[in-house]
Amino acid sequence: MSGDSIALGPGKVDLLESIDQAGSISEAARQGNISYRRAWDMVDTMNQCFNKPLVESVTGGKGGGGAALTSLGKKVVQIYRNMETKASMATQEEWKSLQNHLKK
Amino acid sequence: MSGDSIALGPGKVDLLESIDQAGSISEAARQGNISYRRAWDMVDTMNQCFNKPLVESVTGGKGGGGAALTSLGKKVVQIYRNMETKASMATQEEWKSLQNHLKK
Repeated sequence: MSGDSIALGPGKVDLLESIDQAGSISEAARQGNISYRRAWDMVDTMNQCFNKPLVESVTGGKGGGGAALTSLGKKVVQIYRNMETKASMATQEEWKSLQNHLKK
Repeated sequence: MSGDSIALGPGKVDLLESIDQAGSISEAARQGNISYRRAWDMVDTMNQCFNKPLVESVTGGKGGGGAALTSLGKKVVQIYRNMETKASMATQEEWKSLQNHLKK
């Protein structure tokens, strides 16, 4: 959190990875089944919450420009995925216990 | 997850704790600022996803009946809160790193 905006979460990190692979916000939005407007708002929120942008626009190239992750953007994705892995590893016992109480 | 329903999450665990304290679904819904219908649906989903109910109705008593957590309900709350604590402890380094990149 930064102020009232949610700086980062699973949806935003998925979007960052899609932008990294697709090279544009619109293509990433399409892949994630969200509107361009929503994807753009998510990127805008992240860029405003962090002290440097996570996504930057790229001009030129074959597609006539698009979007790419900045070095901070790539770093944030990596940190988040590390968090997920560590959290998952630390809670395996509890996960198994919960699973055992769910209907098969 | 159990089938297509989400068996448990932060909102559902908060609701379970409220029911445990308030002794009724309606009062717990009021405290959580959600409708009675929504709270009831969340309880119904949990009760259907787990192999035994997490919430049961209580008859009689001063208020003329209400709801209470079953022993499994209490156990599930405890497991979930343990998961949160362990996940949080395991990811402190990453949290700090992310915080350092957020606008102050």
